[in-house]
Amino acid sequence: MGGVSTAERVPKQDRSRVTRQRLLEAAVACLAEHGWAGSTVSVVAERAGVSRGAAQHHFPTREDLFTAAVEYVAEERSTALRALFPGGAADRCAVVAALVDLYTGPLFRAALQLWVAASNEEQLRSRVTELEARVGRETHRIAVDLLGADESRPGVRETVQGLMDMARGLGLANLLTDDAARRERVVAQWGALLEEALG
Amino acid sequence: MGGVSTAERVPKQDRSRVTRQRLLEAAVACLAEHGWAGSTVSVVAERAGVSRGAAQHHFPTREDLFTAAVEYVAEERSTALRALFPGGAADRCAVVAALVDLYTGPLFRAALQLWVAASNEEQLRSRVTELEARVGRETHRIAVDLLGADESRPGVRETVQGLMDMARGLGLANLLTDDAARRERVVAQWGALLEEALG
Repeated sequence: MGGVSTAERVPKQDRSRVTRQRLLEAAVACLAEHGWAGSTVSVVAERAGVSRGAAQHHFPTREDLFTAAVEYVAEERSTALRALFPGGAADRCAVVAALVDLYTGPLFRAALQLWVAASNEEQLRSRVTELEARVGRETHRIAVDLLGADESRPGVRETVQGLMDMARGLGLANLLTDDAARRERVVAQWGALLEEALG
Repeated sequence: MGGVSTAERVPKQDRSRVTRQRLLEAAVACLAEHGWAGSTVSVVAERAGVSRGAAQHHFPTREDLFTAAVEYVAEERSTALRALFPGGAADRCAVVAALVDLYTGPLFRAALQLWVAASNEEQLRSRVTELEARVGRETHRIAVDLLGADESRPGVRETVQGLMDMARGLGLANLLTDDAARRERVVAQWGALLEEALG
């Protein structure tokens, strides 16, 4: 490919990036809707409108595809969350609501399917454990920043961690039924408790 | 069976009850360890040391067996939890720790597998939704009693609900790794915040 000019190479890289992105988004949607057992590389490739060969070129194994997909979407959502509050700490109740929102959409459903599959399948376990730790640390960092929480004060770190645990639990409560009305009341109350605790 | 005396019938009923109980406990252990896909009536019957025919006599379908199992174990755990604090509201931090403990053992793992399977399988969905609502209401009632929380005061109901959501989230955080050390610190901190909030 030595003779290919820059002008010709760039669109090809773009196409490749777009294909990768379509595969990742299709993988998360597929995992959220059909679970791990119903999510194969072929199903995702078809959903993304990409050939199976192209999918395997980007992601050699099923585990590669789905862990990359959950990580990619988690990063997209983190970026979107930071963009919601460009000036940093704003109204804490609004921040709590936005943090909880991270756990009620297709990304949480997909991640949950992956976590549960990893608890039963050895070849997924270490990868998903490592992924969960990485995504968890990043989400904690964003929460601390947006809440303007001072982690040097005793108890503040655990206060924020407990909030993120609550958000995860609210995500789980939303799995089988639409829990939005109850969730809104819980978020309002815990937002107020947090406001007091963080001072 | 008109000629069978009471003396002969009772031990048979006992045997039947013991068989049923062994099946239910084996079903929860199996679900926790192998997930829904790996949990069949045959696998559970073998684990319980019961014939497949006897298992099907007690539970005609796979859905019957596993929803009954999760409900049975949840009731057992609720009873055990109430027995821990016979005098009602004691030290609130101890109550919070005991409530969180409900979500970190094999019962939570089994229930989680069932919830996630139900999100992808129509024939499980309505049964598990109904079961989850029932168990959730009962757990909430126990939490209110043991915490001595006065739900007529504004916000108290949502404070307790958020605590149970946090407990569920802590259970999820314990799925792939042993999260006990972090959990203990979060529980201590939120126990203190709750003590303040409940007055």
